[in-house]
Amino acid sequence: MRAVKHTDDEPPRPLPGAPVRDGIPEHGRIPKYYAVKTQVAALLDTLGEGGALPTERDLALRFEVSRETVRQALRELLLEGRLRRSGRGTVVAGPKLEQPLALASYTEGVRRQGRRPGRSLIGLDRFPCPAALAPDVGVAEGEPVWHMERVLLADDERVGLESTYVAVARVPRLDTDFAPDSSFYGYLRERLGIGFGDADERLETVLATPREALLIGTPPALPMLLIHRLSRDTEGRPLERVRSLYRGDRFSFTTHLRGGGQGS
Amino acid sequence: MRAVKHTDDEPPRPLPGAPVRDGIPEHGRIPKYYAVKTQVAALLDTLGEGGALPTERDLALRFEVSRETVRQALRELLLEGRLRRSGRGTVVAGPKLEQPLALASYTEGVRRQGRRPGRSLIGLDRFPCPAALAPDVGVAEGEPVWHMERVLLADDERVGLESTYVAVARVPRLDTDFAPDSSFYGYLRERLGIGFGDADERLETVLATPREALLIGTPPALPMLLIHRLSRDTEGRPLERVRSLYRGDRFSFTTHLRGGGQGS
Repeated sequence: MRAVKHTDDEPPRPLPGAPVRDGIPEHGRIPKYYAVKTQVAALLDTLGEGGALPTERDLALRFEVSRETVRQALRELLLEGRLRRSGRGTVVAGPKLEQPLALASYTEGVRRQGRRPGRSLIGLDRFPCPAALAPDVGVAEGEPVWHMERVLLADDERVGLESTYVAVARVPRLDTDFAPDSSFYGYLRERLGIGFGDADERLETVLATPREALLIGTPPALPMLLIHRLSRDTEGRPLERVRSLYRGDRFSFTTHLRGGGQGS
Repeated sequence: MRAVKHTDDEPPRPLPGAPVRDGIPEHGRIPKYYAVKTQVAALLDTLGEGGALPTERDLALRFEVSRETVRQALRELLLEGRLRRSGRGTVVAGPKLEQPLALASYTEGVRRQGRRPGRSLIGLDRFPCPAALAPDVGVAEGEPVWHMERVLLADDERVGLESTYVAVARVPRLDTDFAPDSSFYGYLRERLGIGFGDADERLETVLATPREALLIGTPPALPMLLIHRLSRDTEGRPLERVRSLYRGDRFSFTTHLRGGGQGS
């Protein structure tokens, strides 16, 4: 194994956590759009959050490249959440929201960061439970289940889309008794005395479908973070199945791991 | 709140966990490429894992659309890991690997799924610790640190890229004593008696840089899952900082949450 020692001739190291030799393939050719992206990213640091980006035309002149090359660089910075559209212009975006992977609800996670959580109801459906869903919500096939779909908001910005499946027998008055802009978990606990025991989650990255992009107000095919949750109550009975889609440019998820020395 | 009851006139419900009214924006127009994507996805289920996809030309004829429309549909299915390139053709991909979010290593997670884990060394550097990294690896600014970069493999397929920062004082003989295709955590535990205590992780989706795409062998700008880890030993001392990049089309992450009724 070859250890390369640092000498004074070498270029300065990137900050830890940043990609190493950012963007430079081994064969040494940096794609032109990527060189522009790096320069624009440095410009964003100077402008600061909320700062207005110069126009594509100005950037093309400044970096002496075509507007198409600028557009490709900006497209990646938008998809990654470094930039956001604001009115007719483009501004420097704030840092991603950090949501803990925990049984705590969306409401609580967003509040912890000083943002105002909200939800907007897309639809509430009642339908006979298909076989594939039955074990997840703890009813027999054909028994009635609710499907509730809500857009997630942070300070009135649309940031995600949540689909909840729960047995009607568990929450009989969901259609008349529950304010859809409030926390479902708060409702379960305070009105029905149902506590959360544990949950299995699976997290992946997917592309927004055209419908999802329209509902959340994102460009189509924006990478999203998708969390599948299966949760049980404090007695271990199946409670709900949830599909939560978060804007990949606006969210990151955090977790604390304990090992007790068992790490391997 | 309006509750829509299910009647026999309604179309069959999608499987739970699938996007609802997949791809159909509220204004009722389905983008042509997305309709083709849905049809190809159904075809993939018929072909089964490893099955060869017909050519773009054949698909364009079958669905009566342009090859450009077929290409856009296939591009999304590739990015999402439903398809993969194989030699000169395109085949149906297997399911994503499910990696537990746990202190256990990459090695262990991949083995649990019956795949053979491997790693390939890109580089090992030794350099004076910058101020921003010092608290994370538990040394003073300017003390020597290692940076080890490895490509992650599963059954010889390149699936990720891992950057580890650790103090030279902790692991003095990393350059001569450690087999870079083996588990670093195993080495720490078995050779140096260092156990993992706990770690903080942050997970987000990012686009692969051109260099990363080249090293992992993915298309540029493929959505990736990026995990930042800060870990401490069993005595709570800072141990390492790790930046792990996983192919978004090949990985999902799982976690088990416990609430004890505290969910809200």
